[in-house]
Amino acid sequence: MTGKLFVIGLGPGNYDQITPQAHKAVADAKYFYGYKPYIDRLALKKHQVAVASDNREELARAKEALAKAAAGETAAVVSGGDPGVFGMAAAICEAIENGPSEWRSIDVEIIPGVTAMLAVAARIGAPLGHDFCGISLSDNLKPWELIELRLLAAAGAGFVIAIYNPISKARPWQLGRALEIVSAILPPQTPVIFGRAAGRIDERIVTYPLAEAKAEYADMATCVIIGTPDTRIVERPGRPPLVYATRFSRCPSS
Amino acid sequence: MTGKLFVIGLGPGNYDQITPQAHKAVADAKYFYGYKPYIDRLALKKHQVAVASDNREELARAKEALAKAAAGETAAVVSGGDPGVFGMAAAICEAIENGPSEWRSIDVEIIPGVTAMLAVAARIGAPLGHDFCGISLSDNLKPWELIELRLLAAAGAGFVIAIYNPISKARPWQLGRALEIVSAILPPQTPVIFGRAAGRIDERIVTYPLAEAKAEYADMATCVIIGTPDTRIVERPGRPPLVYATRFSRCPSS
Repeated sequence: MTGKLFVIGLGPGNYDQITPQAHKAVADAKYFYGYKPYIDRLALKKHQVAVASDNREELARAKEALAKAAAGETAAVVSGGDPGVFGMAAAICEAIENGPSEWRSIDVEIIPGVTAMLAVAARIGAPLGHDFCGISLSDNLKPWELIELRLLAAAGAGFVIAIYNPISKARPWQLGRALEIVSAILPPQTPVIFGRAAGRIDERIVTYPLAEAKAEYADMATCVIIGTPDTRIVERPGRPPLVYATRFSRCPSS
Repeated sequence: MTGKLFVIGLGPGNYDQITPQAHKAVADAKYFYGYKPYIDRLALKKHQVAVASDNREELARAKEALAKAAAGETAAVVSGGDPGVFGMAAAICEAIENGPSEWRSIDVEIIPGVTAMLAVAARIGAPLGHDFCGISLSDNLKPWELIELRLLAAAGAGFVIAIYNPISKARPWQLGRALEIVSAILPPQTPVIFGRAAGRIDERIVTYPLAEAKAEYADMATCVIIGTPDTRIVERPGRPPLVYATRFSRCPSS
């Protein structure tokens, strides 16, 4: 007998930003797997069981949840933000592809959520307002050279760049190097937003010109948004400035 | 006296994917401005007033809503998905920057939502599972040459490409040309997902290899996701295949 696996996006961390679909999935599942800070957000009932794990154990966690679902249970893997954006959904798909054939019969339901860059953007204006990209600075699963190539390609073509996983103990120098790389292409006054814990009590969202942006302004919970030459700052009396990407864009040469 | 302006993301169209924060903002506002299909999703009370407009009138709509808020009312502009992703948030910021100085005193609250690419991705697996970008094919406000540059830069650097505004009566040939351009870089078997109305009753999500992908498979309500050489398809007996981007990536030359 095959059970069910939910892959749930819990949003950026504000209770009001969790969709009703996600709440229903949490109510329906019995076994929960996830990185501890996300598990800690759940208000589980007595019959529900949570298994917290470290944030570098995605594949092991995926396999454990799939095995539980294959045994006929209703399991859930939880991600912050959206599970399809540097979250657990890809690890689940990978585990199914490479796992026992019966895992392909499991009813997998992925519940999207508000991903970090959207939550940060909403708090400050509309910095993603035209073409944008999302890049993870984690070089566990891809070579650092590829990350550099992507940063250069994105900055050169005028994409707004949302950086996920900017910095951690295991990843100390990558954000500094990323800011250095894009500085070769982008003007020094290009706005860089450091958005931490958007919508939560400990929210901190600050904007610096690229020339003054430092890696130390970010931590693990920060989404960094690097603007373009078309990103504008609107000062407002008594209110934080609005930062937005103009809806029109110019060619890099013009 | 200055009122308030909400800029609300209504999500992809499924009631269960509207956040509680968005529901509260809808309950609090009196005057609503938006593209008619989004206005039609609202279940307004008798005292609430809706002003529907065409989808190419973003700036006029933004100004009308700001003027209402400046007059002391609580107004709301509604977008599908997330208002910061090719939605109304950038038009509001632009109108404030260029409008009367008192508009800078308006309390503007932007409510993020589940944007289309996340909703489509969740229904089919994890096609955005590594670095990705979002590109609008609308060439009203940017030159078509820039869109071609961005498509080439993104495909060449291995980004998954989510295409917004792929096709319309006023935009008949752009998607076909976009598919042609990326075919110069991407292998013919690269998966291309046409995701229409994700999570809604009339949902239709289909995947074709790039060599067989045709612009006519999309309409205005479609988000097209173009994979990379690292995008995988997992066949499942009795279930639709899972399409996902591997968490690891290779350099283009390897």
